[in-house]
Amino acid sequence: MDKKNVTQIAIVGWGNVGRGVYNAIRNNESAYKDVALSAIVTRDPKRVLKELGGNPCAVVDANDLVKVEDMRYSHGEDVLPRPIDVAILCGGSKEDLPLQAPLFATYFNTVDSFDTHPKIADYHKMVGGVASYHGHLALISGGWDPGTFSLERVLGNAFLPTSNTYTFWGPGVSQGHSDAVRKVAGVQDARQYTLPIQSALARVRKGTNPKLTTGEKHTRLVYVVAKPGADKRQIEKEIKKMPDYFEPYITGVDFITQEQMDRDHNAMPHGGFVLTTGQTGGLLGKNPNKASIEYKNQWASNPEATGSILLACARAVHRLHKEGKTGAITMLDVPPKYYSGLTDEELLRQWM
Amino acid sequence: MDKKNVTQIAIVGWGNVGRGVYNAIRNNESAYKDVALSAIVTRDPKRVLKELGGNPCAVVDANDLVKVEDMRYSHGEDVLPRPIDVAILCGGSKEDLPLQAPLFATYFNTVDSFDTHPKIADYHKMVGGVASYHGHLALISGGWDPGTFSLERVLGNAFLPTSNTYTFWGPGVSQGHSDAVRKVAGVQDARQYTLPIQSALARVRKGTNPKLTTGEKHTRLVYVVAKPGADKRQIEKEIKKMPDYFEPYITGVDFITQEQMDRDHNAMPHGGFVLTTGQTGGLLGKNPNKASIEYKNQWASNPEATGSILLACARAVHRLHKEGKTGAITMLDVPPKYYSGLTDEELLRQWM
Repeated sequence: MDKKNVTQIAIVGWGNVGRGVYNAIRNNESAYKDVALSAIVTRDPKRVLKELGGNPCAVVDANDLVKVEDMRYSHGEDVLPRPIDVAILCGGSKEDLPLQAPLFATYFNTVDSFDTHPKIADYHKMVGGVASYHGHLALISGGWDPGTFSLERVLGNAFLPTSNTYTFWGPGVSQGHSDAVRKVAGVQDARQYTLPIQSALARVRKGTNPKLTTGEKHTRLVYVVAKPGADKRQIEKEIKKMPDYFEPYITGVDFITQEQMDRDHNAMPHGGFVLTTGQTGGLLGKNPNKASIEYKNQWASNPEATGSILLACARAVHRLHKEGKTGAITMLDVPPKYYSGLTDEELLRQWM
Repeated sequence: MDKKNVTQIAIVGWGNVGRGVYNAIRNNESAYKDVALSAIVTRDPKRVLKELGGNPCAVVDANDLVKVEDMRYSHGEDVLPRPIDVAILCGGSKEDLPLQAPLFATYFNTVDSFDTHPKIADYHKMVGGVASYHGHLALISGGWDPGTFSLERVLGNAFLPTSNTYTFWGPGVSQGHSDAVRKVAGVQDARQYTLPIQSALARVRKGTNPKLTTGEKHTRLVYVVAKPGADKRQIEKEIKKMPDYFEPYITGVDFITQEQMDRDHNAMPHGGFVLTTGQTGGLLGKNPNKASIEYKNQWASNPEATGSILLACARAVHRLHKEGKTGAITMLDVPPKYYSGLTDEELLRQWM
């Protein structure tokens, strides 16, 4: 694997995850020097330029679709100073990605964090069709869940095929769910906290292998700032009936002021764990033996963590594409070393 | 990926790990029906046949090297009733694998659990040369450390490139180290316990990012049954000066009777964890945010756990070899879905 080549990144969407990718690129530039920021695509170029305090990369106006298409063909020209190896799509799963992914996969390799779990297989088919036709590679559903948590679930089940696998989230703010609530009519701002149900967690840890739906493992708490004159009862109803996002859960909705929101709900922490509990052996006249694997992560900034993982995914996508791979993949398809900025020899000597 | 095909396994070496693989194959046969036991290669066929209580697979005498070579060419003949897709080498890293791996990689795809960390890169080169020349694929250093722990170290560093990564083992019995001690002249039986140093663990969990050598994180405790008339002082000296295995550690050596060994040290538990602590962000006028990933496993039977992971590796090796991959690889090269007995569609729908 040629590690000398730099992976040139375009950030598509300047929200929290987009800023997380920006931070990750800058941190990786200092650590491994094999990634670089080529362009930022945004609906508000002026705000981005102001926030960056200069012009360290091309800033492309997302409202100008002709320009987005031009990005593919204007390397070294006025629009883009550098080529783009991978576009990281930082929009939300509900409304942004289903439109952005096929558009960008037409022109670029892409990475996204599509996180509506029940729709991942269909989204995979849709994005894969476009990417494959145009000779690009699209990694979908990167991040930590889906993403590293998916990976741990699959590994746990592969190593211990008769085991039970449990995922718990939180306590923390879910970006995707907050995003979904913000799109409800009458909502000015929203923040959604996911809380594990402690009694369910305790039962799993005891090794009793209970059967639990996601709704029996978590509650959801939503803080909402309503627009002036909005119908709060209608907003609450809309939120609670949202399929996939809130309908399967016990959901609380609290209305607060924008001032309270800015003061008390500014941080975006999250975390969770994947637990695989099972057994090995049990044959040749011996009793079975307990086996458990537990994967935990804690992020003081969820979007920065997601951005960090998406950047590693972009590095992997660039390499796999250079090897000729096209279509749609997930983190389950990626050889782990492709995420790393280290050489094969370094990995064998220092990290095995 | 064609999941219909069954992976036919040969177990090479009927020790604890070999029995672990046997158990894993039987458990996987009931769960996914895509692996099968084809042969057991052993120095003591009579013992194996007695232990299995019948003849559920070919049992090949490892003392008869001509027969081992014949295995490759005698599919369906008197030696082997079924072909062998992957040979899982279950010998020790110190004396068995360096001889077994090139021999078996000449005739078969292989999986092993070579665990002498400082020699992995050279072992990779040696085995890779043989496997590549003969058109086979050899996965080396599978298991949990090296293996899944290596994978977690590499992922942690890739996602958080400015982080610190720590590995702690135990408390538990190390198979490789027990094995190494048993090869010391005058040793009849041995069991080695690895114990994390609690004060070091506490410093890491505090997030103080201390610099720690492996010797500063663990102590090693060895229980030894000496052969009648053996020089115990010499044995202790030999153990403590063993490079890689014991020299870097504070090592205690206790001599006990075989009766005590059988009574008190019969179980082979082990475990450990990989901890990655770092931060994200820190740019665009914001403070950095703490980030941590923790991976833990606990095995009541270490060799059965290793056997379970090696079997999943064998499934992956068979698939990668069918795709044309040859030479030496580690778990860092394997797309995670290749370990699983589930189809791509099942993984996308149920496990992402």
